[in-house]
Amino acid sequence: MNSQAKLPIGIFDSGIGGLTVVRQIHKVMPHEDLIYLGDTARVPYGTKSPTTVVRFACEDTQFLLRAGVKAVVVACNTASAWALATLQARFAIPIFGVILPGVEAAVGQTRNQRIGVIGTSATIRSQAYRKAILARSEAVKVYERACPLLVPLIEEGWIQHSVTLSVLHEYLEPLLRHDVDTLVLGCTHYPLLKRAVRSVVGKNVALVDSAQTCAYYVREQLADAGLLNTRRRQPGLIHPHVTDDAERFTAIAGRFLPAPMAPARKVHLPPMGSEC
Amino acid sequence: MNSQAKLPIGIFDSGIGGLTVVRQIHKVMPHEDLIYLGDTARVPYGTKSPTTVVRFACEDTQFLLRAGVKAVVVACNTASAWALATLQARFAIPIFGVILPGVEAAVGQTRNQRIGVIGTSATIRSQAYRKAILARSEAVKVYERACPLLVPLIEEGWIQHSVTLSVLHEYLEPLLRHDVDTLVLGCTHYPLLKRAVRSVVGKNVALVDSAQTCAYYVREQLADAGLLNTRRRQPGLIHPHVTDDAERFTAIAGRFLPAPMAPARKVHLPPMGSEC
Repeated sequence: MNSQAKLPIGIFDSGIGGLTVVRQIHKVMPHEDLIYLGDTARVPYGTKSPTTVVRFACEDTQFLLRAGVKAVVVACNTASAWALATLQARFAIPIFGVILPGVEAAVGQTRNQRIGVIGTSATIRSQAYRKAILARSEAVKVYERACPLLVPLIEEGWIQHSVTLSVLHEYLEPLLRHDVDTLVLGCTHYPLLKRAVRSVVGKNVALVDSAQTCAYYVREQLADAGLLNTRRRQPGLIHPHVTDDAERFTAIAGRFLPAPMAPARKVHLPPMGSEC
Repeated sequence: MNSQAKLPIGIFDSGIGGLTVVRQIHKVMPHEDLIYLGDTARVPYGTKSPTTVVRFACEDTQFLLRAGVKAVVVACNTASAWALATLQARFAIPIFGVILPGVEAAVGQTRNQRIGVIGTSATIRSQAYRKAILARSEAVKVYERACPLLVPLIEEGWIQHSVTLSVLHEYLEPLLRHDVDTLVLGCTHYPLLKRAVRSVVGKNVALVDSAQTCAYYVREQLADAGLLNTRRRQPGLIHPHVTDDAERFTAIAGRFLPAPMAPARKVHLPPMGSEC
């Protein structure tokens, strides 16, 4: 075990969606301490431009590095889509995104070579999923759809609401008409809608949960690098940080995380220089 | 006419919603030059905390002051609700919000003394409308409802969509059961949904458009202060500025503003010191 292995894993997202990744990472690596940063003062990232998303992601990563993490997980599809390469070039620490693990799972699961991808406007505009899928298999056809209303519906708590089902029908029917047999839930909020999505797509479409696939991927990568914390017996601690007030975060966080966590701390992110 | 009268009016909002105010101000004061700032990198404000909204509003106002405006219009209900008093105390220039004009219109229009107010979560949580209405007339009953899905629906372009009508039914029915005869559209995005709201509330409920009432109020206040630009013959110019990339802004702005405007410029807002 590497001497760095005892350090916490850093995880960031634009807001609370990344807690689905925290949940899965805590499940598959229960001994790891986790430092979470939700950039709730500037949420969402999914409607913003690439330049702005890259700037925010650099500031988030810088914060986690200063907090002494051994690796960073970009628990946000939008930031993974636009900023991962820049972060990996800029910071000397392992940095993992959510897109690659989801792509590998989808390509492994499809039988008819027709994969659907849903995500925020920015994620879909980036074509990050399409490019990564086609890089693995040119035979696959990829059908994408931006679903900008799903995050607000989840944050409103309308998880099983008839309006949410109508919105899902409108968003997903064009993908179903293309006969996709695998659907990537390409936003870390979406696992909360899994049951509603299932009721719209039926039982023959495989759902790829990018939070879950990411957790397995990170465990594998950390193990390969000797960075897994294998020595501790007790469960790891989850330390959440937010850039807006902690109150609303704590209220909503319960929907994402069944495990108890420390109260969220409000932090200020100093802007990066021009280098990022 | 005061020597400052030739200067432009500054208007800011968290994003694009404030363009409904720009539209109305341009309509009732066609000779005024307008400098608009949409804080699109950090939009929305309506889901953020008071402290964060005040900080953002101070930075927005500082930017407009440095651009040389004669007055500032806070074209955002959330920022008006939480930050107006701080801005007025901090900056030595006339600063107007959207809430007071809407309140005066609503109190003037109600016949049965039952007023409904809809807005973002932050605006409703502030109770700014309730307090301002009750300060004018203790006899009025105020029924409020946060409608966090309306802004995302408008930005998705689902203005007359059946989903939007379902959402409006869900949000507005409790207010209608209280027999309100006047409904304040307490968010600068909402005038775009006027027709859909009308179809849900029927023709006997008066709709108060806070963008429109604000424009008349600002004209009156500027005239009283000798700050109206009465000398120019040609129409004033609209100069939009945004904190995220200008492209998406320009694409959506057309839905708000029929008048042509200059291309939006991307700007960087330096953070305020601790004084705000």
